[in-house]
Amino acid sequence: MNTHLQREIDKLKRNVLFMGAEVEDSVYRAVDCLVLRNAELAEEIIRSDSYIDQLEVEIEEECLKLLALHQPVATDLRYVIAVLKINNDLERIGDLAVNIAERAAYISVRPHIDLPLDFRGMADITQSMLKKSLDALVKTDATLATEVRTEDDGVDAMNRHMHWVITEYITKNPQRTEELLHLLSCSRHLERIADQCTNIAEDVIYMVQGEIVRHKPENFSSIDKHDDSTPRSE
Amino acid sequence: MNTHLQREIDKLKRNVLFMGAEVEDSVYRAVDCLVLRNAELAEEIIRSDSYIDQLEVEIEEECLKLLALHQPVATDLRYVIAVLKINNDLERIGDLAVNIAERAAYISVRPHIDLPLDFRGMADITQSMLKKSLDALVKTDATLATEVRTEDDGVDAMNRHMHWVITEYITKNPQRTEELLHLLSCSRHLERIADQCTNIAEDVIYMVQGEIVRHKPENFSSIDKHDDSTPRSE
Repeated sequence: MNTHLQREIDKLKRNVLFMGAEVEDSVYRAVDCLVLRNAELAEEIIRSDSYIDQLEVEIEEECLKLLALHQPVATDLRYVIAVLKINNDLERIGDLAVNIAERAAYISVRPHIDLPLDFRGMADITQSMLKKSLDALVKTDATLATEVRTEDDGVDAMNRHMHWVITEYITKNPQRTEELLHLLSCSRHLERIADQCTNIAEDVIYMVQGEIVRHKPENFSSIDKHDDSTPRSE
Repeated sequence: MNTHLQREIDKLKRNVLFMGAEVEDSVYRAVDCLVLRNAELAEEIIRSDSYIDQLEVEIEEECLKLLALHQPVATDLRYVIAVLKINNDLERIGDLAVNIAERAAYISVRPHIDLPLDFRGMADITQSMLKKSLDALVKTDATLATEVRTEDDGVDAMNRHMHWVITEYITKNPQRTEELLHLLSCSRHLERIADQCTNIAEDVIYMVQGEIVRHKPENFSSIDKHDDSTPRSE
């Protein structure tokens, strides 16, 4: 690889990592907003999402410039294409954080509902998934990326549990349906964040191994493929 | 552009259109499954989604091969990158159709709920959006793509209306919460399909005009940016 291309790819890597950190922070604060019932935080998250959007546009432009000027092939080409797609996934995670924050702001000004819903625990796993998938990108480590796919199953199970708890509560307290539906959405958004992290991990695996792992059987229950609040046993 | 590259791009175009038609059919049948309360259709949709997944992988491989062998620049490069992203969006629409079908199958074996929910009308708009956005891709027509962004607002409004109707009904009939939540999800999935069509349209606009229109103010209420069942007036 020529030195100039190497420098450009290193820069791209740094920029994606920077964006990843911003997105991670956004998810963390969105869950804070929900757990601490702090509506003011929501405003901040919505504001910082514009910055994430701007980063996405810049990274996409950078990828296109790199493709046009350096015309990379083989591993380098796959790297740039992976970044293009991961960039898109990161931006969507940012949007989902905004969705959580908006719901949290709505709930925060209404009477507290005492339910055993471990949003922080669920967010901790998605955060670990995001860190791990970006770490896998930087280290071009397919093994690390594979771990992310496994963790996704845990988040799916937590989402199904929350769905069950909330549905039960609605049945007994229908007058609070609206707020409970917002709680349900927060759980679903976190589950979709985990799906996006799985997408990132799969793009890393593809980049490293040149193999498209999406839609492979072992992964059939992840990446948006199934809607995890659907009761499978029915 | 050299003739060989032109031929490859024409082939890519045909393949994306073919995939688009498969996806459109899948959405149509998913809504049939819901409206006609026909659980058997769901099986078919799930089966044909594997085919859509396979098409996605093939198109992605085709794009990468084209980039590596022909190293396109300028308009051609933007075209291939747009197809790469649109391919991804189409596959996600296929997944959302599966999600609708799964929910529909669950609902179909339970007593009918008589509610004024126009799923077919909502699906008709998303179908028009999908057709239009792919037509815009083939004709490289940014004006047509812009229309898709406008139509998305209509789908958002229908989703908000359905959310309102269903929430009201749950409050009065809590014993049917589970089925009603599935209906709510169908509405939300259709709304997300419309968002994906908007993403496609925006990629076409970018391809034609070289301008990233995502995150621009006039579009601020679309593309997953906001969660449209959140009551904005609150």
